Amino acid sequence: MKTPHRTLQVDLADRSYPIYIGPGLIDDSGLYRPHIAGSRVMIVTNETVAPLYLARVQAALQGLRLGEVILPDGEQYKDLATWNRIFDALLAQRFGRDCTLIALGGGVIGDMSGFAAACYQRGVPFIQVPTTLLAQVDSSVGGKTGINHPAGKNMIGAFHQPRAVIADTRTLDTLPDRELAAGLAEVVKYGLIRDPAFFDWLEANAGALLARDPAALAEAIERSCRNKAEVVAADELEAGQRALLNLGHTFGHAIEAARGYGDWLHGEAVGAGMVMAADLSRRLGWIDSDTLARIRRVIAGFGLPVDPPPDIPAERWLELMAVDKKVQDGTLRLVLLRGIGDALVTAEFGTDDLVATLAPTTAPAPAP
Amino acid sequence: MKTPHRTLQVDLADRSYPIYIGPGLIDDSGLYRPHIAGSRVMIVTNETVAPLYLARVQAALQGLRLGEVILPDGEQYKDLATWNRIFDALLAQRFGRDCTLIALGGGVIGDMSGFAAACYQRGVPFIQVPTTLLAQVDSSVGGKTGINHPAGKNMIGAFHQPRAVIADTRTLDTLPDRELAAGLAEVVKYGLIRDPAFFDWLEANAGALLARDPAALAEAIERSCRNKAEVVAADELEAGQRALLNLGHTFGHAIEAARGYGDWLHGEAVGAGMVMAADLSRRLGWIDSDTLARIRRVIAGFGLPVDPPPDIPAERWLELMAVDKKVQDGTLRLVLLRGIGDALVTAEFGTDDLVATLAPTTAPAPAP
Repeated sequence: MKTPHRTLQVDLADRSYPIYIGPGLIDDSGLYRPHIAGSRVMIVTNETVAPLYLARVQAALQGLRLGEVILPDGEQYKDLATWNRIFDALLAQRFGRDCTLIALGGGVIGDMSGFAAACYQRGVPFIQVPTTLLAQVDSSVGGKTGINHPAGKNMIGAFHQPRAVIADTRTLDTLPDRELAAGLAEVVKYGLIRDPAFFDWLEANAGALLARDPAALAEAIERSCRNKAEVVAADELEAGQRALLNLGHTFGHAIEAARGYGDWLHGEAVGAGMVMAADLSRRLGWIDSDTLARIRRVIAGFGLPVDPPPDIPAERWLELMAVDKKVQDGTLRLVLLRGIGDALVTAEFGTDDLVATLAPTTAPAPAP
Repeated sequence: MKTPHRTLQVDLADRSYPIYIGPGLIDDSGLYRPHIAGSRVMIVTNETVAPLYLARVQAALQGLRLGEVILPDGEQYKDLATWNRIFDALLAQRFGRDCTLIALGGGVIGDMSGFAAACYQRGVPFIQVPTTLLAQVDSSVGGKTGINHPAGKNMIGAFHQPRAVIADTRTLDTLPDRELAAGLAEVVKYGLIRDPAFFDWLEANAGALLARDPAALAEAIERSCRNKAEVVAADELEAGQRALLNLGHTFGHAIEAARGYGDWLHGEAVGAGMVMAADLSRRLGWIDSDTLARIRRVIAGFGLPVDPPPDIPAERWLELMAVDKKVQDGTLRLVLLRGIGDALVTAEFGTDDLVATLAPTTAPAPAP
């Protein structure tokens, strides 16, 4: 089969890989085959995605020796015990080092499967088949894999690049509205950190995206992946500019940890987190009130929360943010904005301004 | 302080690192400092080693912000739950990505700490301070890290090179005889797979090594590390010749799994496993009976078992060996010998010969 699609190459020397974007790609066996090492494939998915897409991936891989492991669905299962179930399945079915893993699902499945691939027998290949917008625009690009620890998100993990990403835009038809919005949070992020023209485009095309217009979605996915791929190619191991991809994430991770993983979606927490980052930037005089209001309006327009939960005390915020991976020598660093499309990592902010951002005086929007 | 020592450089491009070998090095703060990133250091050790050496390492690192995690001692604790205790400690004490781990102990501590360093916040540096002969000659060179799964040894892990290895030969004074012998098994292995002159030297110096003559031990450690470093430099990710380092290990891992980890020491199982590999090589006509007898005599001379436990049925052997990482497309491959100093990885053996090796007709030596 040859399904029409866009292809984007992520340029990482001998770890380079293609991202295929288009409708119906999940059934295209020709996209998988060149990226499968050996004859055995373990499909890792979850209870929500399996009934929708597992049989179709199995059909596309006909003739190979397949295994499957179906995990519970939700960020709260992105833990050591659930991760270990992938190894249980691989070992029970005697998968050797010459197998390939396929991550079929959203970001949680991608992160856990990729991390299992990184560690199984010290490393086997894997292919990402992301079925949520969040995973298509973000989690499947860049090779970050990992699981959560009760004390912090993504604290245990590895850099492990997939052999290919197969992003079937038609899988987004089955995505709940709330998850579509969560994915759009990461899309907006690329505009905010490095692509002001894309931010303008998103502002103009919000209606089409929310209506799931296929062309608008494909454009948003490709431009997001292209932005992320450029950042990752320049800084694979996050020594520098890659940290900018964390805009809104330090605040967002704290929200997720405070609420318990799985209450707010990751993208929802990032949506509110980006507005908080903009709010702090405005307090520092780096962006003006109009810019803050515009950012807030675009994010709210995608159906995302723009205020943190009102019940987290400032001390708890600071405690949760202290475990962020950008902390150096005990000093908190944040991704802040000098304008739309212009972000930086900095520790140059006062605690007073930070605390004011954590406890806003504006009335909080209703929680999702 | 400047303690006299030998230095061996492991050549791995930007992951190159030095191995320092000599008496009293554990106290030499000058050896640690250049390899510590940031100001925070987590020392990972176990209940046996901590009372002997923890305070000395802490003294050598005076002025840095130190943490410690003391794990139970034994191969049976090289598991997911114990590994997670390292993350518990790192997160409870708010260690950031700019910390350094120190693995103070034997191979189990080195493997678990190195794997924790590989995965903590997707990778932090670590330094190996091996306190057993096995760890000094083997586990601390080459970057293999990992933990066991109930279905197989070292099935979950990563390649993660240390920043430095500090091998204090005086720590071997406190090593039980049985553990010294277990380390000598890996020393003999280097002679068998690629260094016939070293095998001759070991045969001639067995008495001095068993008497813990410092010069003989230093020589054996340096030559073992040099052999391993050469193999690893040529094949960091085990695509080819590095697999030769597994001589005796497929049999040995099966023995350990069958007996339950921690009953036979790893080196003891490898000792018997190497004789089994030699036995199968003799059955295939690749080495003669005299060579087999010589190998058996040298290994027995170091106080190691030369026969497997008598109570493992052949089917169980085959089942346990089927999860070996050298299995490709379901076919078992073994490291066998064409002579002393001449090893190969091969699937060219018949099941009959293999089964004859698994159930030897010679009277087994007493178990350790």
